[in-house]
Amino acid sequence: MNTDEFRRDATDMVHYVADYYDTIRSRPVMPDVQHGFLKQLIPKEAPLQAQSYEDVKKDLEDVLKGILHWRSPHFHAFLPVASSFPALIADLIGGAVSSAPFSWISNPSGTELEVAMMDWLAQMLQLPSEFLFSSGGRGGGVIQQTTDDAVLVAIIAARARAVREHPDMTPGQTLDKLVAYTSAEAHSCIKKAAMLALVNIRLLPTDDNFSLRGQTLATAIKEDKSKGLIPFFLGATVGTTSTIGVDNLCELGKICEQENVWMHTDAAYAGSAAICPEFRHLLNGVEYSTSFSLNPHKWLHVTVLCCAMWIKDRELITETFRVDPAYLMNYNLQGDVKMPDFRNWTIQLARPFTSLKLWFVLRMYGVQGLQDRIRNDVKLAKQFESLVRDDHRFEIVAEVVLGVVCFKLKGKGNDVNEELLKRINDDRRIFLTPSTSKGVFYLRFCISVNTTESRDVSFAWEVIQEQTDLLLMPHSNGVDKKAKEI
Amino acid sequence: MNTDEFRRDATDMVHYVADYYDTIRSRPVMPDVQHGFLKQLIPKEAPLQAQSYEDVKKDLEDVLKGILHWRSPHFHAFLPVASSFPALIADLIGGAVSSAPFSWISNPSGTELEVAMMDWLAQMLQLPSEFLFSSGGRGGGVIQQTTDDAVLVAIIAARARAVREHPDMTPGQTLDKLVAYTSAEAHSCIKKAAMLALVNIRLLPTDDNFSLRGQTLATAIKEDKSKGLIPFFLGATVGTTSTIGVDNLCELGKICEQENVWMHTDAAYAGSAAICPEFRHLLNGVEYSTSFSLNPHKWLHVTVLCCAMWIKDRELITETFRVDPAYLMNYNLQGDVKMPDFRNWTIQLARPFTSLKLWFVLRMYGVQGLQDRIRNDVKLAKQFESLVRDDHRFEIVAEVVLGVVCFKLKGKGNDVNEELLKRINDDRRIFLTPSTSKGVFYLRFCISVNTTESRDVSFAWEVIQEQTDLLLMPHSNGVDKKAKEI
Repeated sequence: MNTDEFRRDATDMVHYVADYYDTIRSRPVMPDVQHGFLKQLIPKEAPLQAQSYEDVKKDLEDVLKGILHWRSPHFHAFLPVASSFPALIADLIGGAVSSAPFSWISNPSGTELEVAMMDWLAQMLQLPSEFLFSSGGRGGGVIQQTTDDAVLVAIIAARARAVREHPDMTPGQTLDKLVAYTSAEAHSCIKKAAMLALVNIRLLPTDDNFSLRGQTLATAIKEDKSKGLIPFFLGATVGTTSTIGVDNLCELGKICEQENVWMHTDAAYAGSAAICPEFRHLLNGVEYSTSFSLNPHKWLHVTVLCCAMWIKDRELITETFRVDPAYLMNYNLQGDVKMPDFRNWTIQLARPFTSLKLWFVLRMYGVQGLQDRIRNDVKLAKQFESLVRDDHRFEIVAEVVLGVVCFKLKGKGNDVNEELLKRINDDRRIFLTPSTSKGVFYLRFCISVNTTESRDVSFAWEVIQEQTDLLLMPHSNGVDKKAKEI
Repeated sequence: MNTDEFRRDATDMVHYVADYYDTIRSRPVMPDVQHGFLKQLIPKEAPLQAQSYEDVKKDLEDVLKGILHWRSPHFHAFLPVASSFPALIADLIGGAVSSAPFSWISNPSGTELEVAMMDWLAQMLQLPSEFLFSSGGRGGGVIQQTTDDAVLVAIIAARARAVREHPDMTPGQTLDKLVAYTSAEAHSCIKKAAMLALVNIRLLPTDDNFSLRGQTLATAIKEDKSKGLIPFFLGATVGTTSTIGVDNLCELGKICEQENVWMHTDAAYAGSAAICPEFRHLLNGVEYSTSFSLNPHKWLHVTVLCCAMWIKDRELITETFRVDPAYLMNYNLQGDVKMPDFRNWTIQLARPFTSLKLWFVLRMYGVQGLQDRIRNDVKLAKQFESLVRDDHRFEIVAEVVLGVVCFKLKGKGNDVNEELLKRINDDRRIFLTPSTSKGVFYLRFCISVNTTESRDVSFAWEVIQEQTDLLLMPHSNGVDKKAKEI
């Protein structure tokens, strides 16, 4: 494919993408396919001869018929995964230059733009200056691929610190005594990170607001120390996946400081809301964090993968992650700032030019544009909450903090609520996912894309009510109502 | 930005990218910038108000002036990082739908296309059928982000198996006894993976061809077992970064089989060459690997990040990496094949739709197109090797197996060769990186992009000869020659 063909075919794909967005409401959000459906459509082997763009495009529709449409305004599942036109445009040039910013020399602009963007974001979030490069201290930010990476990097660095602090024991002896903590409501990536780091982790109970409190942590630490164990890591959460529960960072942070416990704060989704002054309080206590992360690929319009992570003392990571082989030559350049070699902050050596996407997105939306998105999502979630509260059959399971509403059929058991969810999704007009907290199963309604409007919230509620009618009053006119609409 | 604006601005960026490729020869491959240069060009804070695409584009040129141009035909450093027009086109639609294939339900097409593409690639490489999903066995492939991820996943899974196999000991007691092996020439990611997994690793010496041999491993294992240690992992390499050295997989694999050692084979760069029958021998012995990986983002035209990893028994990974929280609801659908939930094969939960890129690339190049690329690169490397051999001042350091030539000034010490490299790069017309093996520093010349032509190889050699003249005969007419050309 030469540049002329690229001009033609990539332009065609730009219009294909725009058409996809223009017509997305007409696609069922959830595809009607079965395990193995694609086997019939994809040849068993790669073609020997080159095929044309047109050949591939012809089959693309088959593939798109089998995807879950995360961009649909009727998608209300999980947590948002971002996409935006500025990010797609930035991906074009970022992918085209393919200049990997693993050291300063391997992509000077890429390294320095990452430094600048991490400081921009930190300022937008009003993070303590210790987390900023521009403070001239030991702190700074880095783009990780995902929260899983950020948490794994943090727990491995914390483990390394604990091993160093116990020179009288072998690493394995220390490892057997280490205890990490997180709340029972925290994302599974924290438990997974502990599994991968081969350390014990305790899932601590939360209060009635699904928030981990200081006293709970203090008691657990005391218990464990009395057994001769070594508490070393806390995975705190601002905005759990299940209910958007917010741990009490101030209470927890003070204890972690006293007890020499590394507090990593995972604010993957909810952290972005802190760019709005009225939601900044969610990050109160973030100043106690040893490290902190959130995902611009969730709520800040940057396509996957983009997790922003900050640390107060970057050497805590780099001294654990540094390898300096001869073939990754770097020049020890002198300038007014010592620039980071980001490969020593991450698991991965190869890295995409993700800072370019942040730069396009932050400029083309502006801080106000990004705030508008968050405020609008929260407003729509509140609209949904009102609808739920107005129906006596339902109850709200957790305070609606941001763009997620947790609800269930009042007085009904898990099985009935599970059946309701199944019926809603089988209907295929909207898509929701559930969660379980303290043994109670509930449905979650998430505002996922910035094209969701008030009418989409109303539409979703109508579908849910219809399915509820059918479930609870199978012989009523609920059936007729549905029949009419089809 | 609405879809009309996207049509206009993204089309403009398509042409910007095409123009970049059309004019790349006119850009100095290595930018003339100092640490901190971008600080002058980037405001200290993100803008409050949205800015236009035109605003950002105006500043983009400043950013591009500060990147290392990995796409330049004069870039001969490191190993290739791929980019291609089909991959850029696929990224547009993949990023636009943003449908994360972490479970079957979260993106059915994404999951099934990944299954199909991993089988396509495995067949192209003539991997043993045990590695293919279509064999109906326990094997299969998965897209990891990078080799670092693949190796870390493998070593963590191997460690978990070792811990399970020693139920009489605590995990820490087992950990203290575990020993991993790799060659002194292996990529730093293997050493890094061992550091992150908190296990000991021994870097074993290679033979004169920079190949790790069976006898060396056997001796090390015997030594370690006699000390009561537990050998559990070998990171074998097909195509080291330094010299493209190839470990003897047949010898090593038999020992690993006998000794219950997990052999992960890292063929990040060189593995792709095995799609050409004449290079398939490089993978002889791959059948002994417990797991195997290579990077389509190196030599198969897929933009970063894309590492293909196969495993003979996928449960070895999934039983270590599985977390199944309620909010990642899946339907236990019945179909003709049980489809994988790829989140349990990887560190990351969020995953881009990378299989779409593989699909576009494999179809739009075809197997023959991909073979042509590899053969052409090897031919150009051989051309460079001839030029070096014809100059009595130089020597070839390692057999030229694929697209990398390692060379140095004959009879000169590391300091002189380091100085030569510095002068070549300071000249800024071409860019090379070095390596060191067995204490000897040398220069590496890599064919990095598919637009490199025979004339670019000749040009690079002229630059190197000029700088050599200047270095070795500073008072000769080498200076005049350079002055004339400028």
